[in-house]
Amino acid sequence: METREKLLAAAEEVFGKKGYYEASIVNICQEAKVAQGTFYNYFPSKKDIFDELIRQFSRDLRLTIKEEMANAVNYEDSQRKGFQAFFNWVKNRRNLYSIVQQAVVVDEELYRWYYDKLAAGFLKSLSAGISAGEFKEIDRETVAYCLMSIGQFLGMRWVYWEKQDVPEEAFDAAMTLIFEGLKKQ
Amino acid sequence: METREKLLAAAEEVFGKKGYYEASIVNICQEAKVAQGTFYNYFPSKKDIFDELIRQFSRDLRLTIKEEMANAVNYEDSQRKGFQAFFNWVKNRRNLYSIVQQAVVVDEELYRWYYDKLAAGFLKSLSAGISAGEFKEIDRETVAYCLMSIGQFLGMRWVYWEKQDVPEEAFDAAMTLIFEGLKKQ
Repeated sequence: METREKLLAAAEEVFGKKGYYEASIVNICQEAKVAQGTFYNYFPSKKDIFDELIRQFSRDLRLTIKEEMANAVNYEDSQRKGFQAFFNWVKNRRNLYSIVQQAVVVDEELYRWYYDKLAAGFLKSLSAGISAGEFKEIDRETVAYCLMSIGQFLGMRWVYWEKQDVPEEAFDAAMTLIFEGLKKQ
Repeated sequence: METREKLLAAAEEVFGKKGYYEASIVNICQEAKVAQGTFYNYFPSKKDIFDELIRQFSRDLRLTIKEEMANAVNYEDSQRKGFQAFFNWVKNRRNLYSIVQQAVVVDEELYRWYYDKLAAGFLKSLSAGISAGEFKEIDRETVAYCLMSIGQFLGMRWVYWEKQDVPEEAFDAAMTLIFEGLKKQ
């Protein structure tokens, strides 16, 4: 692993376990087994490596969702696959998930950027479904926010808090609520 | 104002502006114009006054929502009034809203308690609507979480970030999504 990647992996572990405010560059370097002076060749500060983790998290998550959605048979299926990809992704990246939540305190602008980016993904797929006539005309941006928020809370509730998959019954209930509301009658 | 209330009001201001980790008991006492020794007659630590703010926030919000819901003409109206009460409430308590979000880092159990309590309120009203035959049978707990999460994100998006009311168009789109999905066909 390159030094930069080692530092990012270590920061993910340290921020996830101790939280941003309790974590130090010394902790990150110890975890990464990298000399402290070397850290500054890659990141000017603790805040910079935190920012980079969130941006990386955002890119990876959106790419994963996009790839899953590409296999869908219609736009409802695309949204379902997107949710499922998100839940699977959180399951394997618990520390990163906690780091995004920390951004609400550490850097509100960054937190907002993260959610705006995620909502934009939902918006794109939703708009395509409306254009194709599968979904009804509705305030797209608001519905994109609704979809994202449902994914967020179900992921938090089940995957993050309970450390289990979102139960099929719960997933189905959420999808029923959403797609009954979206389908053209 | 009683000393305890003065301290809580000051803590709300200080935690909201500086964040939990940057705030000190000294800051809170200065803001409250209360001697530092007096603080400990009321709260053993910074963490204790933080906890009490969240619990107070939760009680006040749930009471406000309940009172609004009491004026509803049916269960859909009850949910709509609940959302509106939440948005109005956030508008006037921006610091408290930020403090709840901080709990995700400061005390995850408390954060979870806050959302479980709020979801329980949605669940109660939703169950009543199902029993009355206005809403279809559906996994109640999941739908309660979906409702809460939509309120949460719309509130964050518009009231907290944009410092304005949730636009009528956005509110209507969210309500359409929800109630098309919930209504008995």
